[in-house]
Amino acid sequence: MQNNNSSGNDQKFQVRKLEVSDKSKGFIELLQQLSVCDSVSDKEFEERFQELSSLGDDHVICVIEDDQLGKIIATGSVFIEKKFLRNCGKVGHIEDVVVDSNARGLQLGKKIIGFLTEHARSKGCYKVILDCSAENKGFYEKCGFKQKEIQMVKYFI
Amino acid sequence: MQNNNSSGNDQKFQVRKLEVSDKSKGFIELLQQLSVCDSVSDKEFEERFQELSSLGDDHVICVIEDDQLGKIIATGSVFIEKKFLRNCGKVGHIEDVVVDSNARGLQLGKKIIGFLTEHARSKGCYKVILDCSAENKGFYEKCGFKQKEIQMVKYFI
Repeated sequence: MQNNNSSGNDQKFQVRKLEVSDKSKGFIELLQQLSVCDSVSDKEFEERFQELSSLGDDHVICVIEDDQLGKIIATGSVFIEKKFLRNCGKVGHIEDVVVDSNARGLQLGKKIIGFLTEHARSKGCYKVILDCSAENKGFYEKCGFKQKEIQMVKYFI
Repeated sequence: MQNNNSSGNDQKFQVRKLEVSDKSKGFIELLQQLSVCDSVSDKEFEERFQELSSLGDDHVICVIEDDQLGKIIATGSVFIEKKFLRNCGKVGHIEDVVVDSNARGLQLGKKIIGFLTEHARSKGCYKVILDCSAENKGFYEKCGFKQKEIQMVKYFI
């Protein structure tokens, strides 16, 4: 017997790359659920969008849109660092993963992480890494990650 | 009274950007003290060097050379991630910091971190981050860093 609900969710909540028109669909408001982000003007958004687009596969931001609401409800990014280490290896860095607080429990975070991880793997990275709070450790373990090091930070402002 | 030794070290151990000729000065062998890195051919090295150079200030690798030995004895890198978060902010990511095991105690690690941190700050980053082992936490605290999150990793090979 088909699980209509699950199958419906899979079709409804597809992961795709960020488009410039997503600003009007609440992309910035979604990021505000994660960290400090004041309003960004259309011009600033388009400039940053172009800068990142010029990096091609080396910097990808993905989103999930709720088609019915016309609203971005999940996002995450991955950029690819090129090293000399590991025989000129590459590492995927996952950043800025957030799921809308009204869309929890739909496995959207897992879809986002799956998309970003697969992108890094397909581009030849030998590993993918991310930093998270201790409280999110369990979620990332379910996504196949393991804790390795600690993150240190120095703020300038 | 001048501290001749310290002043001598400052002049002797200048931080500068990686040059393509540093491969013949033991740059890869130095990285091998940090992690897995088989031999890299001159061609592979030059290609990766060009790729990274094309990123300009967005990816900088610095080194310290022992002029007497003609040998690279410390290195570290920083790349700048462009975000939408924090009002289209930028974050410096420090990676692959290593000091030759024969050159410890000369504060070369501090010089490398100082150079990379200042680079990130001067390019408008709102913070600089890095991942390290718990045993290196004290060193980075002396450099002005604070522990924040935990690092999660997924290996593909």
